Amino acid sequence: MLRPYPRDVLGAIIARMSVERHVYFFGNGRADGSAAMRDILGGKGAGLAEMANLGLPVPPGFTISAKLCIAYVEQGTFPPALRAEVDRHLKHLERVTKKGFGDAKNPLLVSVRSGAAVSMPGMMETILNLGLNDQTVEGLIAGSKNQRFAYDSYRRFVQMYGDVVFDLGKEPFEEELAKAKARRKVKRDIDLPADDLHDLVHDFKTIVKKRTGHPFPDDPQEQLWGAIEAVFKSWNTRRAKDYRQVHGIPDSLGTAVNIVAMVYGNMGDDCGTGVAFTRDCRTGENVLNGDVLTNAQGEDVVSGARTPEPIEKMKRGKLAKVYRELERLATKLETHFKDVQDVEFTFEHGQLYMLQTRRAQRTGMAAVRSAVEMVEEGLITEEEAVQRVPPQDLDQLFHPMVDPRASVTVLAKGLPASPGAATGEVVFDADEAEAMKKKGHDVILVRPETSPEDFHGIVAARAILTARGGMTSHAAVVARGMGKTCVVGAKELDVDPTAGRFRVNGRAVKRGQVITVDGTTGRVILGAAKLVTPKVGKEFDQLMAWADARRRLRVRANADIPADARRAREFGAEGIGLCRTEHMFFEGDRITLMREMIVAADEAGRRKALAKLLPIQRRDFEGLFEVMDGLPVTIRLLDPPLHEFLPHTHAEIAALAKHAKVPAAQLERLIHSLVEANPMLGHRGCRLGITYPEITEMQARAIFEAAGHVAGKGKKVTVEIMIPLVADVRELLNQTEIIRRVAQEVFHREGRAVPYLVGTMIELPRAAVTADEIAKEAEFFSFGTNDLTQTTFGLSRDDAGRFLPFYVEHGLLSDDPFQVLDQAGVGKLVEMAVKLGRGTRRDLKIGICGEHGGEPSSVKFCHRVGMNYVSCSPFRVPIARLAAAQAALEEAGVVSRTKATV
Amino acid sequence: MLRPYPRDVLGAIIARMSVERHVYFFGNGRADGSAAMRDILGGKGAGLAEMANLGLPVPPGFTISAKLCIAYVEQGTFPPALRAEVDRHLKHLERVTKKGFGDAKNPLLVSVRSGAAVSMPGMMETILNLGLNDQTVEGLIAGSKNQRFAYDSYRRFVQMYGDVVFDLGKEPFEEELAKAKARRKVKRDIDLPADDLHDLVHDFKTIVKKRTGHPFPDDPQEQLWGAIEAVFKSWNTRRAKDYRQVHGIPDSLGTAVNIVAMVYGNMGDDCGTGVAFTRDCRTGENVLNGDVLTNAQGEDVVSGARTPEPIEKMKRGKLAKVYRELERLATKLETHFKDVQDVEFTFEHGQLYMLQTRRAQRTGMAAVRSAVEMVEEGLITEEEAVQRVPPQDLDQLFHPMVDPRASVTVLAKGLPASPGAATGEVVFDADEAEAMKKKGHDVILVRPETSPEDFHGIVAARAILTARGGMTSHAAVVARGMGKTCVVGAKELDVDPTAGRFRVNGRAVKRGQVITVDGTTGRVILGAAKLVTPKVGKEFDQLMAWADARRRLRVRANADIPADARRAREFGAEGIGLCRTEHMFFEGDRITLMREMIVAADEAGRRKALAKLLPIQRRDFEGLFEVMDGLPVTIRLLDPPLHEFLPHTHAEIAALAKHAKVPAAQLERLIHSLVEANPMLGHRGCRLGITYPEITEMQARAIFEAAGHVAGKGKKVTVEIMIPLVADVRELLNQTEIIRRVAQEVFHREGRAVPYLVGTMIELPRAAVTADEIAKEAEFFSFGTNDLTQTTFGLSRDDAGRFLPFYVEHGLLSDDPFQVLDQAGVGKLVEMAVKLGRGTRRDLKIGICGEHGGEPSSVKFCHRVGMNYVSCSPFRVPIARLAAAQAALEEAGVVSRTKATV
Repeated sequence: MLRPYPRDVLGAIIARMSVERHVYFFGNGRADGSAAMRDILGGKGAGLAEMANLGLPVPPGFTISAKLCIAYVEQGTFPPALRAEVDRHLKHLERVTKKGFGDAKNPLLVSVRSGAAVSMPGMMETILNLGLNDQTVEGLIAGSKNQRFAYDSYRRFVQMYGDVVFDLGKEPFEEELAKAKARRKVKRDIDLPADDLHDLVHDFKTIVKKRTGHPFPDDPQEQLWGAIEAVFKSWNTRRAKDYRQVHGIPDSLGTAVNIVAMVYGNMGDDCGTGVAFTRDCRTGENVLNGDVLTNAQGEDVVSGARTPEPIEKMKRGKLAKVYRELERLATKLETHFKDVQDVEFTFEHGQLYMLQTRRAQRTGMAAVRSAVEMVEEGLITEEEAVQRVPPQDLDQLFHPMVDPRASVTVLAKGLPASPGAATGEVVFDADEAEAMKKKGHDVILVRPETSPEDFHGIVAARAILTARGGMTSHAAVVARGMGKTCVVGAKELDVDPTAGRFRVNGRAVKRGQVITVDGTTGRVILGAAKLVTPKVGKEFDQLMAWADARRRLRVRANADIPADARRAREFGAEGIGLCRTEHMFFEGDRITLMREMIVAADEAGRRKALAKLLPIQRRDFEGLFEVMDGLPVTIRLLDPPLHEFLPHTHAEIAALAKHAKVPAAQLERLIHSLVEANPMLGHRGCRLGITYPEITEMQARAIFEAAGHVAGKGKKVTVEIMIPLVADVRELLNQTEIIRRVAQEVFHREGRAVPYLVGTMIELPRAAVTADEIAKEAEFFSFGTNDLTQTTFGLSRDDAGRFLPFYVEHGLLSDDPFQVLDQAGVGKLVEMAVKLGRGTRRDLKIGICGEHGGEPSSVKFCHRVGMNYVSCSPFRVPIARLAAAQAALEEAGVVSRTKATV
Repeated sequence: MLRPYPRDVLGAIIARMSVERHVYFFGNGRADGSAAMRDILGGKGAGLAEMANLGLPVPPGFTISAKLCIAYVEQGTFPPALRAEVDRHLKHLERVTKKGFGDAKNPLLVSVRSGAAVSMPGMMETILNLGLNDQTVEGLIAGSKNQRFAYDSYRRFVQMYGDVVFDLGKEPFEEELAKAKARRKVKRDIDLPADDLHDLVHDFKTIVKKRTGHPFPDDPQEQLWGAIEAVFKSWNTRRAKDYRQVHGIPDSLGTAVNIVAMVYGNMGDDCGTGVAFTRDCRTGENVLNGDVLTNAQGEDVVSGARTPEPIEKMKRGKLAKVYRELERLATKLETHFKDVQDVEFTFEHGQLYMLQTRRAQRTGMAAVRSAVEMVEEGLITEEEAVQRVPPQDLDQLFHPMVDPRASVTVLAKGLPASPGAATGEVVFDADEAEAMKKKGHDVILVRPETSPEDFHGIVAARAILTARGGMTSHAAVVARGMGKTCVVGAKELDVDPTAGRFRVNGRAVKRGQVITVDGTTGRVILGAAKLVTPKVGKEFDQLMAWADARRRLRVRANADIPADARRAREFGAEGIGLCRTEHMFFEGDRITLMREMIVAADEAGRRKALAKLLPIQRRDFEGLFEVMDGLPVTIRLLDPPLHEFLPHTHAEIAALAKHAKVPAAQLERLIHSLVEANPMLGHRGCRLGITYPEITEMQARAIFEAAGHVAGKGKKVTVEIMIPLVADVRELLNQTEIIRRVAQEVFHREGRAVPYLVGTMIELPRAAVTADEIAKEAEFFSFGTNDLTQTTFGLSRDDAGRFLPFYVEHGLLSDDPFQVLDQAGVGKLVEMAVKLGRGTRRDLKIGICGEHGGEPSSVKFCHRVGMNYVSCSPFRVPIARLAAAQAALEEAGVVSRTKATV
């Protein structure tokens, strides 16, 4: 069994506890703690303490240290001194509030809330109004002169306590509530009269007694300690543990318990509760915004039972003063924390209280704009701005999105494979997609899954939607490479291309019907949803300039055609790190020539077909070299198994047989014989160039001739030729000899030499562990971490969909290793290869060209192990640039203050 | 480019040469060299020197050092001093032989032969009678008084020189010779009269002039230096280089040149030449044997132009004296070299000369018997006997073989997947094989390739023959495991099961026809070939006893059923290292239950089917535990992808649909959905047990219940449960928790606990590099080097047939990594895992259960990295025992003298 702490460490912790303080008071303009004590007070407690110290109106209360949590979970008891310490603080709270806990005349009620150092779902939620019983409720009525309010508070308390302490769930209580409203024929909770609420309290208590076998506790002390224990216990619920495992949060953190004097937003129309953001979290605009509900308590805002109103509405009318005060406090908090804040507030008869403040979640656009503007405002430094924006969030900046305010009909949800949103008519076939596109239609290609034969359909479509496949399936990878919206693995879809329709949850969508695909969230939406395009402006350019000035890692793009290369440069790519030559062979006539080559009976036949491919391939390379204009271009030689190029339907086979002048039956046999049990581990990569050296020859010739032609026009050309799937240095040697020989021939014939490097992909574990040998021949390494992940894990990304989601969900893997580089396993091989390679060749140029080259944590890893560059799809280049800058700043010890912000 | 030597090292070698001696004389009862100087003199030269030193009748001559070879190959010239040194030795040779090189009256003729330290095909062959020209031939006539002999020698010389020095091949000369025999209407070369031979010399020289553009060299000095250069150059022919690369022979060895005064076996009927073995190389019997040809020169024996006679024939008649002398010398040589010798001899007018002696090749049976008898004779020590027998050769001892003397019609040749030979009627279907077997027929199952569904057919057949697949294909692995004869990848076979026949090279073999499959050589033989069974007797037991006393590594067997386990114990296995539980599910009703489990709609349905499998599986384990009687039994939980168990034909699917009460169409869809792109990297191994924990539960329950029952009968049970395909410790933890929980349940219920270990396969690179983490949970490691090789190389063994043979043939890989563990790559991961694992858990038990566990060099590797045991198929257990003993002796520094033997 895994234990968060070994026994001896635990012993030391417990020993220390007996002398340490466990409870921290705040309120009345001062606090025992501060924002820096997050580890002890948790996020919520630290925020409350800091606000109290700043003199903000915070209801008084105290926080029980998170350090106690683990000991409680392990031992099931509290240190003996705790009870006295809590009592002491409760007494102090009574003095400050001038109320008595359990006092039937003037009762002190409190909220009990959990709060860990890291925001974490799955733990115990809030309990409000704790301290109420049949006696104290009378005091509350007397004090507030509001019977309805008092019983509303009471029934809320019993409901929340039953849900979170007795673990009965919300449903039994909601059912009773619904019955009461039905009886009274009202829609809203708020419309229930006091009597009904009074009865509900009784009904709720009956539910508790029936289900737990014990009466609902009336003693406020018993209520309090039950709640405290429930908070601590909630640290170890299955859901919380799983969440921590998945997100790499240490089990040893623990959660604090916040006990705060109640203030009431449900005492009348001059009362209310709400949330506010110091800037617009969608756009970044520097304007206070948020939602408010009058005559309500906290959970009403989130539960959706009533629709809150925008806080701007408070500006005018009787709440104008409250609004101005909120504005003042929000500015004060942002200036203090130097980041956009997300605050919770309550006002009671016009008196504003701040209940929580924390760093606000925001869109990519808002993150960029607010960071840059805060530098301009002098709030933060350029380095802080660079470190503050999560690189991943930049992905949202370049794609249209479904208007967050639009109301849409979601048909299904798949994996958000490539961001953006697009609307179009559904088609089920690549040819049809192309034909419709030509007629001026916007189309969405919907397939069970895609294969290279669908390539022209992907090109023609506005978006791709598949029922199968994961984040690195064919559709996902190709679409991401083109920056095209894509949702994959939408399992609920039953796609029937033959019938020309897909079914989903009892609904059928036919060819030609309009849908919207939201690649940012994975939603499949019926009809044309309203799309909006984020504006990336000068703030983005400014942030990138600051990042570029600070990063060491170069950033290249994966691009196969000049249009991609051009886009890559627009996004700031400093070269092409991966040009996949096979993608050049799928279009138009090329596939026919390629097939001619494959079905040729002998080398002479293959050479004949290759000779026809040569000028086409040469033109491809010329285009790339011209666009890149001296920046390095890494070209990978043919990689996929040959059968991927072959036709599969009878009609296509017959056509090819006719073209190639071979009997169809013979061709069928050939195609069948090329099918592999495990194509991923089959006859592909350099194994093709070794068994058919004429393919390597043709490709090398096309590269060198193209380089010569472009150089002849006075442009600089920097060529790097990359050999795929090398397992042993002898394979590389075999291919290098061919390439160098062809280079000499071409250079000699054309009277012009072009500088070039020959290197290899490191994408097999054997290449990684023999990298010292391989570096004797390789002038550069490029880690193909997609394949390296597949082989290191023994995991086919095409098949992983059957268990990988289960793994990630159940914490057997922290992340999908095809999205986030597995540093503990794959990364270990990468590090080993870097070390071995540089041991042989000190100046070995090293990069990465797998999908991970555009994933922030992986980019940072690449920086740390000393790579020269990362290469990713053009749209992810800014992400990589920013992550690279953050890595450099982290290395230099510049720690973002964002982390220390509550 | 790879160079054997860097420039500076080469310079040093050349510098040293100017002071070193390059030429070594032998003859007249003394020699400059000895057997210890193999590196300089090569095998042949060292043998000649040693024989001369022993006082054996060796024709005098000298050897040019192999050290010169590399310098010559690199530089194209000889060191200046060499010519004078050779001249000096040639003069000495003239003095000793009392003949003159180029002397027209009394010519000295020599043979020129290459000879490297290691026997190696592809290099230059012998040139005999060098020194002959139109003048010296007259002296030879005069001296021998035998014109026919002289011209026969002359035409042989021109023929051989033209072939090997001018590289014209044998054909043009053989054609002329054939014409001459046709003209004279004789069949044998020996029947051509002197005049015809005289004319042939002229014709041969004309061929040389026509083809090379230069006249045939008449100057003996020019002849000699041409031959010397040709020998050195032959070191770097493509074929020789490839051979070295494949066999790991360093390029830097070089070959020596042996120049030996001619003695003539072709001077008459009291002359002759032959080869002899000091013991019978088929049986090991201590009896001189060999072949002899009278009135012939060396190459006649090997060329097959005349059929030699057994040397026993010499015992009586005029050659009796020569025979007795040969017997005396053979004994002397064997006693001296302490190993069976293979000698070449020539006798000239009754005078015997020894031309070569070397270690004799022998069968496994002969190797064992001669080694053991030599210990008994006091010739060698027990350790030497253990080290002398190549472990691989033991494989021949347990299988019938095709009588080496039988004449057979070979239809095709495939890969010798599992040794032995068997005769039977051809069947093309597993069911038919079973039915025929029941009727008492011996059958050979012939398939394009096999799958688990053919299992019962493999069980029923005497031998398996497949057209596709490699040494580790399904048929190969299963057959080897059962010790059943098997030939796979017989590519020339066009197998048509539907038509009930296979075609091969224009011939058709139909169902029911008899063939013989020779799994030792890979031959497919028409009809019933005569089979013989090697006798393994007390010598084998004796050798194994010596080996067992010296090894540290334990040897276990891979066995799935009690019959295999029993056989394994007979072969000396000390436990079961791998019991593949899935093999238990393919037979009879079990596959139906397994299918029922897979097609179940939910967990409840799966549990129902599993409950029916439980008692069956429990009985399997009981059987194993009883046979193994306390020896450890390692049981691997379910490993293969589920779809392997499912039916594929429409009829089978319909049957299953009926049985499982699901619509056939739905079942088809399910089966289709289970098909994986790369099943090797798919939903298998522990991924099954994690997503379907009820499978692991059932297997664990069956194991513990079985163990309890057998223990209840008073037998000891040692259980090791092994989790397959673990990539991360969390997977292992998940499965371990289930197993330990079930163990507690069963032990508690039955009131009896059985000791057990839970460990893991290390068969993925990620497991190897995170072995420190995994060892926290694993109580033992077992390296699954088949899968580890696949993933480390990114190489599917099912698909590798398309390029792996090309790789091995062209030196891109030294060996098939599925047969011989790749120590440089896979081995590096194994070493790393051993080190990391033991770093966490010092006493971690470590073994190997891949195919490599029975391959000698891999077994030795396992010893060196410190494993506790190897596990292999039962028939290979003796091989592993012997290899393990050799590894221990090597480690202890006991070097076999065999290696130093010429």
